[in-house]
Amino acid sequence: MESLFLLVLGNTEISTVPGISVAGATPELTKLTPVADAEYLFHERPLTLDVIPVTPEGHPTPAIITKAARELANFPLLVVRGGTYLAPLVSHLHISNAIGRDFRREPALPEFGEIIKRAKLLGEELNRLPVKELVVGESTPGGTTTAQAVLWALGYNARTSSASPDNPLSLKERVIAEAFQRVGIGKGHLRDNPLEALRQFGDPMMATVVGLALGFRKEIVLAGGTQMLAVAALLKALGEDPGRFMIATTKWVVNDRSATFIETAREIGAITYSADLDFSRSEFKGLRDYERGYVKEGVGAGGATWLAVKAGFSPEEVSEKVEELYGRLMG
Amino acid sequence: MESLFLLVLGNTEISTVPGISVAGATPELTKLTPVADAEYLFHERPLTLDVIPVTPEGHPTPAIITKAARELANFPLLVVRGGTYLAPLVSHLHISNAIGRDFRREPALPEFGEIIKRAKLLGEELNRLPVKELVVGESTPGGTTTAQAVLWALGYNARTSSASPDNPLSLKERVIAEAFQRVGIGKGHLRDNPLEALRQFGDPMMATVVGLALGFRKEIVLAGGTQMLAVAALLKALGEDPGRFMIATTKWVVNDRSATFIETAREIGAITYSADLDFSRSEFKGLRDYERGYVKEGVGAGGATWLAVKAGFSPEEVSEKVEELYGRLMG
Repeated sequence: MESLFLLVLGNTEISTVPGISVAGATPELTKLTPVADAEYLFHERPLTLDVIPVTPEGHPTPAIITKAARELANFPLLVVRGGTYLAPLVSHLHISNAIGRDFRREPALPEFGEIIKRAKLLGEELNRLPVKELVVGESTPGGTTTAQAVLWALGYNARTSSASPDNPLSLKERVIAEAFQRVGIGKGHLRDNPLEALRQFGDPMMATVVGLALGFRKEIVLAGGTQMLAVAALLKALGEDPGRFMIATTKWVVNDRSATFIETAREIGAITYSADLDFSRSEFKGLRDYERGYVKEGVGAGGATWLAVKAGFSPEEVSEKVEELYGRLMG
Repeated sequence: MESLFLLVLGNTEISTVPGISVAGATPELTKLTPVADAEYLFHERPLTLDVIPVTPEGHPTPAIITKAARELANFPLLVVRGGTYLAPLVSHLHISNAIGRDFRREPALPEFGEIIKRAKLLGEELNRLPVKELVVGESTPGGTTTAQAVLWALGYNARTSSASPDNPLSLKERVIAEAFQRVGIGKGHLRDNPLEALRQFGDPMMATVVGLALGFRKEIVLAGGTQMLAVAALLKALGEDPGRFMIATTKWVVNDRSATFIETAREIGAITYSADLDFSRSEFKGLRDYERGYVKEGVGAGGATWLAVKAGFSPEEVSEKVEELYGRLMG
């Protein structure tokens, strides 16, 4: 296959703000979601923990979609440690172990420059391979809040999505307002200084994907929802043509009325793809609830489905394979 | 390019036995040679140190050959941390941070199983890429001694080469005899138990390359001298067809009368390639001395030259580029 899927892992302290993230059963377990997601893609169960990440209400990680699409399309996948608490217990491309700091109190990512530099060199290396398309997914609990902060700093009136059907919009706005106050800026004030927006409010996943996309000059699919909008907005502000990037996500993000995925993508000028997965007839409540707005996206689920579709499989077949994998886990 | 060059980094405590390794200016600096080699390939100078690795007498690392070949042929290169004291300050594929222990006192690599497993999964991933050939080099100070120990355990009457013109043969034999005594075995006693030979006497580079070669099923070039003979011997003992592997090295290893490169390669049944580099007319003593048996090989120098030759460059052009790079360093 001439596509390569990269899963970029990131952590930010923002995920520990009560109510911000449901990408794990508890705030402590949420910190381990990125490594557990990565491990699950290569093994029957994660290694750091022996259960897959779930929301506090038990909805399974979207890694199950990525794994299902990959079992069908067999695309090559490499894990990239953008910056996480722990190293995943599978081979991975190491970029950094920097964690995004709590941006209410201090700049989120003083290491942004080093991370971009290393990831850009990596992107240049991958560019030398006979690979035509890089599909870049992410696993970053709390990342929709850092994404909204960066988008606001760059002047977009965006609302990012959430893994919860009750998007904690006012909480997000409150923590972002606190951060903007610390820095002494308002919406759009860092329009011409994207690297400062990344340093003050970003996370290591964003810096890694920005670097990769600067280094890899062929097709790039940003596989994620509103978090990848922030990456695309940063790249555009850095002078990249936003038409270079397709953002591949799921219908659940596109249909999220609490967020502004389509509007913001249009404002940025990025092409979008929406994976038409359907879990409404699943025998498992954890999956059926995706249709009610739980989880929605992550671990490049939409981009992995894109690769399966390009390889000749239908979204229905991906949905069926998800059902099978979940049955195996429950079994 | 349809070839991918991997540089596998390893450390073993054996490098600190006085007289065993000249792959660094001092025993302490020798520990950093793998990371410095890796960093130098991506930057004008290493980052962990700001000088390139040299022998105690000032002969430059063979990384300069790899870098020269790559400036000509522009092949993709990824660094793999098989197991080192420090992480290199460039993006790299992380396998482990396990160091080979001093095999006179304890088993060298209790982690061999985990390393092979991770590296094999990585090899399988790379096998999914449109890459036809993996060229695997190494930087492992002290690695010719672990190689000889493994070859002896497997029953080969091999003498491995050395980065010194005075191959410390009797010292190597003494430390290996001590290790064999600890384990209670003689030459050939682990012929049918290659994993035990690796565990008792190997190093993390070997385990990593074994795993990669088990996972990647297309062309494999083992880019190194007598150290790669040990890897090929392990793979053969594990049931792999040795005809799958070409060992690419330099004429300096092939011409080393103190070692048994050609004889042992023939005994294993691996194909060999010898890069016909010539530094005799260099204006730098550090390079001219390669012709007197200093350094000889490492960092996949022979395999990198193989890639340059396949891309249409001559060994003379590689030698000239080395001269240019060394001039830049001496600047």
